[in-house]
Amino acid sequence: MTITLFELGGLDDFRYCPFCWRTLMAIKHKRMEPFERIPVYYRDRSPIGFTEQRKVPVLVDGDRWINDSWNIACYLEDNYADRPALFGSEMGRSGALFISAWVQQLRRPGLTEIVLWDAFEHLDPADRDWWREDREKLFGRLEDYKDGSEAKADAWRQRLEPLRVTLAEQPFLGGESPGYVDYIVFGEFQWARCISQVELIKVDDPIYGWRERVLDLFDGFARAAPAASA
Amino acid sequence: MTITLFELGGLDDFRYCPFCWRTLMAIKHKRMEPFERIPVYYRDRSPIGFTEQRKVPVLVDGDRWINDSWNIACYLEDNYADRPALFGSEMGRSGALFISAWVQQLRRPGLTEIVLWDAFEHLDPADRDWWREDREKLFGRLEDYKDGSEAKADAWRQRLEPLRVTLAEQPFLGGESPGYVDYIVFGEFQWARCISQVELIKVDDPIYGWRERVLDLFDGFARAAPAASA
Repeated sequence: MTITLFELGGLDDFRYCPFCWRTLMAIKHKRMEPFERIPVYYRDRSPIGFTEQRKVPVLVDGDRWINDSWNIACYLEDNYADRPALFGSEMGRSGALFISAWVQQLRRPGLTEIVLWDAFEHLDPADRDWWREDREKLFGRLEDYKDGSEAKADAWRQRLEPLRVTLAEQPFLGGESPGYVDYIVFGEFQWARCISQVELIKVDDPIYGWRERVLDLFDGFARAAPAASA
Repeated sequence: MTITLFELGGLDDFRYCPFCWRTLMAIKHKRMEPFERIPVYYRDRSPIGFTEQRKVPVLVDGDRWINDSWNIACYLEDNYADRPALFGSEMGRSGALFISAWVQQLRRPGLTEIVLWDAFEHLDPADRDWWREDREKLFGRLEDYKDGSEAKADAWRQRLEPLRVTLAEQPFLGGESPGYVDYIVFGEFQWARCISQVELIKVDDPIYGWRERVLDLFDGFARAAPAASA
């Protein structure tokens, strides 16, 4: 049976939501193809009205729906245990939970402030007024984020040391092959890649090569997505 | 066959080395008892002279020796696969490698500066001159670290958010039961607990309850160690 993913939509069909990317990669990892992708916009969440909640991603599998990228990953792992493993074991799942919390800590303050203006520019135009009002409550004037992203990225990069150390030892965060931990972290980079041209990672950084390897997975699935960066 | 652990010794038989604690807990986890513990001091590493290197912990198992706490954990997991798992899977091992790098980032700058003076005071007296000279090259005058640990601990605690978030979800970092990831992080707390009375964690923090649970493991093995804190 074909599964359906409801995901955040943006300008010109850019799909940049980091949590949706975690789920997209998990679906590919689990070989759940073909699957259908349906965009949901900030201003109109009627496509997921049946869930009586407002958040994407939402995965529909037969008569079940699941929201929240973590819950979806757990659902896929538990219900499709014969497919390639996302976690490998309970300890693998726990490690992923920790890394998800680590990524959250890196996002704000962190990557969010680096790409905030770019994010605004890649919204579907009809979403912009709502988004500006919502985000300016948290961040102040969006225009204040137009400049300075490179300097912020320099500082942010320093905070990635545990990622760098791990990837100097092995090709993927999951080990010799990728796991859900890779997709958790990759979602952040793919978000930035879709909407921004800021150079987050230098080419001589072990993280750079890892990102390239994840972009190459599943016949270059993530690399083929519309993106502001190469 | 009885295994032997060579570990760092301190004042009045305080054994506080965080890496040695990782290994001690891993040995208990793997039910490798009885085992022998032999202290090695900074000034005299002759007990591990046979390894032709200077670092502890060193584990001796029959005619093999292994140094470096990570290598020892991998050795135990791979060679005693029928005993309780330390990693659970390759992805579990990868998560532990990441968390080990995260802990390293938290140590310096971080916990090291919080407990530096306490560490000096808990050295075997005959080790102090060597240690002072060695550490002052890195940190400057040790006496500058006598005060201010509580304020530094306040700042350090904020950085533990990924640990806190994970432990709000489950009793151990490893999940429902402890894994090597727990011992990696616990080693830091046990180091501090052995040598310092600084309050690293508040009682209402999820991390506090977790530390208590790890102290209770193996019939209170870590709790029974000579320590400056309760």
